[in-house]
Amino acid sequence: METLSELSERGLIRRLRPQLVTRPDVLLGAGDDCALVKPPPPGEELVLKSDPIIASRHFLPETDPKRIGHKALGRVLSDFAAMGATPQWALIDFTAPPDTPISVADGIYAGIKTLAERHHVAIVGGDTTSDTTLSLHVFAAGSVPAGKAMRRAAANPGDSLYVTGTLGRSFESGRHLSFEPRLDVGRWLLNRGIRCAIDISDGLASELWHIAEESNARLFLIDSAVPLSPTCVRMPDPLIHALDDGEDFELLFSVPPDDFHFLTDFLQAFPDVLCTPIGMVGEYLEGGRVTYGNGESGGKILPKKGFDHFSE
Amino acid sequence: METLSELSERGLIRRLRPQLVTRPDVLLGAGDDCALVKPPPPGEELVLKSDPIIASRHFLPETDPKRIGHKALGRVLSDFAAMGATPQWALIDFTAPPDTPISVADGIYAGIKTLAERHHVAIVGGDTTSDTTLSLHVFAAGSVPAGKAMRRAAANPGDSLYVTGTLGRSFESGRHLSFEPRLDVGRWLLNRGIRCAIDISDGLASELWHIAEESNARLFLIDSAVPLSPTCVRMPDPLIHALDDGEDFELLFSVPPDDFHFLTDFLQAFPDVLCTPIGMVGEYLEGGRVTYGNGESGGKILPKKGFDHFSE
Repeated sequence: METLSELSERGLIRRLRPQLVTRPDVLLGAGDDCALVKPPPPGEELVLKSDPIIASRHFLPETDPKRIGHKALGRVLSDFAAMGATPQWALIDFTAPPDTPISVADGIYAGIKTLAERHHVAIVGGDTTSDTTLSLHVFAAGSVPAGKAMRRAAANPGDSLYVTGTLGRSFESGRHLSFEPRLDVGRWLLNRGIRCAIDISDGLASELWHIAEESNARLFLIDSAVPLSPTCVRMPDPLIHALDDGEDFELLFSVPPDDFHFLTDFLQAFPDVLCTPIGMVGEYLEGGRVTYGNGESGGKILPKKGFDHFSE
Repeated sequence: METLSELSERGLIRRLRPQLVTRPDVLLGAGDDCALVKPPPPGEELVLKSDPIIASRHFLPETDPKRIGHKALGRVLSDFAAMGATPQWALIDFTAPPDTPISVADGIYAGIKTLAERHHVAIVGGDTTSDTTLSLHVFAAGSVPAGKAMRRAAANPGDSLYVTGTLGRSFESGRHLSFEPRLDVGRWLLNRGIRCAIDISDGLASELWHIAEESNARLFLIDSAVPLSPTCVRMPDPLIHALDDGEDFELLFSVPPDDFHFLTDFLQAFPDVLCTPIGMVGEYLEGGRVTYGNGESGGKILPKKGFDHFSE
């Protein structure tokens, strides 16, 4: 079995270069000190994002390499979707132990290429280095209409909270490796005038808290309405998984109270995407709060667990 | 001693956030799904680059954390310098073992901050993840006047080759941790009309070959003219180190034959920067070649060793 140690770094780069997707606005792709591209036109803002995936944490040693590549780029594209933005160019930093089979590197880049082509994202550079762990650090740049990007801080009293798809047990179902970033939905929401959205990477509970804290508002979760994934439903305590597992890469967003036909129009635009109302935005409240249930006390505080990288 | 495992990921981010440098064109910095910035104005191209540094490979466990941070950002800025470009915004992906002292993370970000402030680079995001290795993956975006970026492929017959500073033994001298990216020199060269440059990260021999191959030209190196660093001069075979050690982060560039006052003007603009002519560009030659010495055979072929990450 051929491993990366038999290829020089430049040999590996030469091998992977045909996998690099390009587009007409790339003036200088991989191979020089930096990449050069045409900037977004006036009226657009530049959008920047990086995200790593690391072996044993975000995928297992036996994971199909194509799916590793898909997930590495897909996570970053999901962040663009959450803002209603369009990713355009990406750089891939790849680290791997020298005894990694070349077929693994080939598979990872093939997975990246397939997803990049589908969303017209050019791969304009990056770096390969040997390390003890297999990891991918993906950086992407793109654009969004000026002043229109959906933000965590933009929820307002009276808004309804919606979520796409179903949640929970993404690791067990394999969804975390195969999800399609919801870029079309994100752009549609932005064009609809939606101002507040986030993607679900840490878990629904955690993302609700992000919106509550950044918007300084109280959020009410209708816990019985949270859409559970088929893998999740079979668990003894499915709601916990839907709230805390994370890596669903669905969109959570808030819809203004005067958008009467929102759900009808959404389902017409995306007949295959489940879209579920799961709560409301209450009054402004410094620091924010997320509650659920509707007892006389006004509901219980939702624990903001989610996924944390250093304290587990 | 407090370690990262005692901080949550969000706790670490909260702690590091004051270290993030900003600038007026940052519309949305770290903390949302993506960062938003004002794109470069018309007449500029967008420049993108990523580069990792990894413990035991690019720095030692006992290295001063401030210098680790300096090097991580400095390497990427050096690539911008090589194109005559101006870096503007950066994202930092940071991985570290959970038992890393918090003071190490603080020091690394302090080193990044000092260098970023000096060059007006905003830190607009990134990610922190636990891993077995301490590493930093830095991504930067910036701008360059359209059509003017210096490239590896732009050397022409009759050009002279120059290098800034002195070369060799950068690891031993500590220069690889303390170099100042030559951004001012890069912009000055671009404005002077220089079209071909590269920074010396892999080693002079390797970079000469990059220019030769990309420009499809024969390069003659005057090996006796290569400026040796003080640490290098003391070695038994100093030229080998100057050619192959790498990580000098100096600029190598080619000056057109009609630029008669180049060196005089350079030394007036940068009285503290050594600038040495080290060779010539000969005829166009498919695939390129680098030779040295001037025997009747037309010189010997320079081995393109340099630093290779997978095959060492």
